Amino acid sequence: MTAPHLDSFLDLCRAAVGPQHVLTEAADKAPYLTDWRQRYTGDAVAVLRPGSTEEVAALVHACHAHKLAVVPQGGNTGLCGGATPEAGPAAAAGVVVLSLQRMNRVRHVDPLNNTITVEAGVILQQLQDVAREHGRLFPLSLAAEGSCTIGGNLSTNAGGTAVLRYGNTRELCLGLEVVTARGEVWDGLRGLRKDNTGYDLRDLFIGAEGTLGIITAAVMKLYPLPRARVTALAAVQSPRAALALLAIAQSHASAMLTGFELMSAMCMDLVRKHYPQLRYPFTAATDAHPQLVLLELSDSEGEAHARAIFETMMEAAFEAGVVTDAVVAESVQQSRDFWNLREHIPMAQVEEGKNIKHDIAVPVSRVADFIETTDALVQDAFPGARMVTFGHLGDGNLHYNVSPPVGVDHEQFLIHQDAINLIVHNSVQSHNGSISAEHGLGQLKREENRRYKSEVELGMMRAIKQALDPQGLMNPGKVL
Amino acid sequence: MTAPHLDSFLDLCRAAVGPQHVLTEAADKAPYLTDWRQRYTGDAVAVLRPGSTEEVAALVHACHAHKLAVVPQGGNTGLCGGATPEAGPAAAAGVVVLSLQRMNRVRHVDPLNNTITVEAGVILQQLQDVAREHGRLFPLSLAAEGSCTIGGNLSTNAGGTAVLRYGNTRELCLGLEVVTARGEVWDGLRGLRKDNTGYDLRDLFIGAEGTLGIITAAVMKLYPLPRARVTALAAVQSPRAALALLAIAQSHASAMLTGFELMSAMCMDLVRKHYPQLRYPFTAATDAHPQLVLLELSDSEGEAHARAIFETMMEAAFEAGVVTDAVVAESVQQSRDFWNLREHIPMAQVEEGKNIKHDIAVPVSRVADFIETTDALVQDAFPGARMVTFGHLGDGNLHYNVSPPVGVDHEQFLIHQDAINLIVHNSVQSHNGSISAEHGLGQLKREENRRYKSEVELGMMRAIKQALDPQGLMNPGKVL
Repeated sequence: MTAPHLDSFLDLCRAAVGPQHVLTEAADKAPYLTDWRQRYTGDAVAVLRPGSTEEVAALVHACHAHKLAVVPQGGNTGLCGGATPEAGPAAAAGVVVLSLQRMNRVRHVDPLNNTITVEAGVILQQLQDVAREHGRLFPLSLAAEGSCTIGGNLSTNAGGTAVLRYGNTRELCLGLEVVTARGEVWDGLRGLRKDNTGYDLRDLFIGAEGTLGIITAAVMKLYPLPRARVTALAAVQSPRAALALLAIAQSHASAMLTGFELMSAMCMDLVRKHYPQLRYPFTAATDAHPQLVLLELSDSEGEAHARAIFETMMEAAFEAGVVTDAVVAESVQQSRDFWNLREHIPMAQVEEGKNIKHDIAVPVSRVADFIETTDALVQDAFPGARMVTFGHLGDGNLHYNVSPPVGVDHEQFLIHQDAINLIVHNSVQSHNGSISAEHGLGQLKREENRRYKSEVELGMMRAIKQALDPQGLMNPGKVL
Repeated sequence: MTAPHLDSFLDLCRAAVGPQHVLTEAADKAPYLTDWRQRYTGDAVAVLRPGSTEEVAALVHACHAHKLAVVPQGGNTGLCGGATPEAGPAAAAGVVVLSLQRMNRVRHVDPLNNTITVEAGVILQQLQDVAREHGRLFPLSLAAEGSCTIGGNLSTNAGGTAVLRYGNTRELCLGLEVVTARGEVWDGLRGLRKDNTGYDLRDLFIGAEGTLGIITAAVMKLYPLPRARVTALAAVQSPRAALALLAIAQSHASAMLTGFELMSAMCMDLVRKHYPQLRYPFTAATDAHPQLVLLELSDSEGEAHARAIFETMMEAAFEAGVVTDAVVAESVQQSRDFWNLREHIPMAQVEEGKNIKHDIAVPVSRVADFIETTDALVQDAFPGARMVTFGHLGDGNLHYNVSPPVGVDHEQFLIHQDAINLIVHNSVQSHNGSISAEHGLGQLKREENRRYKSEVELGMMRAIKQALDPQGLMNPGKVL
C-alpha cells in the first residue's frame, strides 16, 4: 500500500470515528495484535475503535474502497487466534483490526419477552449482571466471562458450562445486527420466538468468526432466575459409569439438570497439588475415585426441593451400582467449592507445564468408547503419556489434554504435538465427532479442519464466503 | 422441452428408481400436484419417488443435466403451497415433483445420546411413537402430525404446540443429510451438541423450503419422557392479563411449562356451536370469560407434583387479580378434553365458513398491544368484522383470523382479503413482528414478504440462493 493511499484511508477513518480512535503507533496497536496467550501475532496498518454501528459501516466502506482486510475483535480472549491478524504477508493491500470494545451499550431489556438487546462489545459478565438486576438469568457462562464480549461469543458460538440445559451461544440468540462485507447494515434485531420468512442468516453469521460480516448487536434470550442452584459431587469408577449417571440424572431432573461435568482423578491430583487451599469433600485419596462428576440442579421451587431431587437421584444411582460416593452441597459456599475444583483445572495445568490440548466433541453415548480407545492409542505411541481429561460430559464435549510421562520436560514434549493431534483427531473422526467443540477454528484449526471436512461441505462454505464477501476482505486466513 | 429430450430424461429416471416410481400419467400425478387444501395446482412432467439418498442424488443429477426444476414434497400438508409446482409457465425447461415419501426408514435410535436418525419421509407421528418406545419424547407436535413428514417439518421449520419449551423444528435438529442442487450428497448427520467447525449449513437448509437443496435425512433430538403431563384452563379478562399469567407461570414452573395457548371467547363460541359434544369445564356463559388460557406442565416427578405447582401458581395468579377462574385437570381424560377445545378451533372455523387467516408473531411482550391496535384498525375499516384470535401465546405466535360481520357471507367477505392482509401485516411490521411465524412462505407469502424484508436481507438471501443453486432449479417460485 502506497503512503498517499494509506493516508487517504486513515483520513477517512479519522473523519468517521475521531482521530483518537484510529491507532497507528506501534505501542498503541500492540495489545490488539497479539492474542492473550501470545500465540498469534500479526500486523495491522491501524487499529480502529468505532463507537456505533454507523461508524462500523463507514469504516468497512473505507476498507472496501481501499481493499484493506478487516479483522474484527471483541475481548481478544479467543483460544484459536481468530481475532488477531495473520502473521506473514497479507492477502489484501493491508489489514486493520476493528475493535468492537467501545460498542458496549445495553440497548434494551424486555423482561416480559425474556430478551435483552446488547451491542457486540458488552462484556459477558455485564450482560449476566444486567439480566439478574431484572430478575432474569442469562445462562452463558465460561472462564473468560469477565473480559470476553458477547460479539466474540456469538462469532465463535461459545459453549461453556450451561450448554446442557440452555444450549450454545447460537441457541441463546434471537436476532442480530450485522455490518456486511459491503458496509451495509442488516437490521435483523428481531426478538421473536418464531419467524419463518426466509433463509436463516442469523445462524450463518453466528460461528462464522467474522469472516462473513461484523456482528454489531444482538437480541439474546433470558430465562427466569432459578430460586436455587444446588451442586453435588459424585464419584464413579469410569467414564462409562458417568454416562449411566447422566441417564439417571436426566430421568430424575430433566431440564432442572443444568450442569454435568466430568473430571478424572488426574485432574483432581493436579488441582490439589497446585491449589492445596481448595476444599476437597472426600476423605479418601484422590485416586480412590477414578472419575468425579459435578452435577448442578437449578430449581424454580427452592433449595429444599433441589436437595430432595438429588436424594432420590443419588439413591437410584447407588442402587444401580453406578455411584460409589457422593456429596450434595450443604450451602451455597459448598456449591462454590465444588465448582472451584472444576474451574481450577485449566490453571492447575498451566502451573504443571504445557500440555497438548484438544477441544473435542463426540455423541454423548460414545464418550466412554472415545476415551478408552484414544487413551490406548496415545499410550501405544507415547508410553507413559498422561491424559488430563475433563469437560462437559452432558454435551459430549471433552477437553482431552495430553501431558508428558513423568520426568519428561513439558516444553520438550510439545515436539510431538502434530503426531498426537493426528491420533486424537483421527479418533474423534472415527467416533463421528468434532475437532472443535466450543472454541472455533480461527487460525489454529483451519488447516486441520480441511483434513476432516468433506469436499462437499467445504465447497458450500466457500461458495457462501464468495457470495457474501466476494473481495475476501473479512478476517482472511480464518476458518476457511 | 422436446419429446426426445423428455424421453431421455425419463429413461434416466426409470433406470435410477425403477419404472413404477416414475409417474407420468395424469391420474397418477394428480395427488402430488395439488395441495391438500386445493389452493395451489401446478403441473409436472413427472412425479419421481426415490427410495434412497443415492436415488435422490441420481434424480437431481438427471434434472440438472436436463435443466428441469425440482419441487421436493413430503406429506403435502403445507399451508403455503411450498410443496406443489407453481401454476403458469415454468421458469425451467420443465418441473418434476420429487416425493420423499418412500424414504421412511428410522435409521438409528441412540437413547443415551438422546437422538434419533430418520429419513425425510418419516411421518411425524411415527417419529413420536418410536421415541416413546425407547422411553423418550420427541416433542414436535402439530395438527398434521398423522400425515406430515419430518423432512417437510424441517424444510418449513414447523412450530406447533411445544415450542415454548422445546423450540421450533430448527432447535430440535442436530444434523442433516442433504442432496445439493448439484446432486452431491452432503453427509452432515452429526449427533453432536457442540460443533464449531465452520459455517452453519444445517440451519441454512432448515426453513429454506427446498429452494437450496433436498433434505434426505436428519438427526433429531430426543428428551426424557415426562412422568406426567397435567393441563389447566384459566379464565382471564384480556390478552394483557394472559401475559401477566405467563410471567407468573414461568416464574413458578420454568422449563416445566410446556404449553401456553390463548383462546378468545369468540373461538370458544365457535367450538361450542359446532362441537356441542365437547366438554366445557366452566358453568358460566362463554362470554363471561373474554379469554381462556390453556396451560400444560410436563413433570419429571409425577402428577401430584405437577398439580401442586399448579395450585401454587394459580393461587399467586388469583391473588394478583390476574385470573378470574381456573380448573386444573383431574385426570388424563380431562387434560385431553382441554386440549380438544383448543384443537377444534381450526375445524370450527371451517364449519363456520372461510375467514381471512394470518400466522403472525410479535415479541411476547407486545402481543396485547398488537391485538388491541390491530382489532381497532380492522374494525375501523370493516365495522363488525369478528376476530378469531388464538394461538401459542408463550411464543408470541397468534393465528389472527378475521371473520365477516354477522349476516355477511363468508365467501363474499374474501374480496377484502388483500386489504385486511395489508392492515394486519402492517401492524405486525410496526410491532417488529413476523408475517409468517410457523408456516413458511411458499407461494402464498413470497410477494408479501418482499414488502416487509429489507433490501439488504433480500440481497443476502439472493446471493446465497445463487451460490448454492446457480441454475435456479430448486423449487422455483418459492420463498424468493
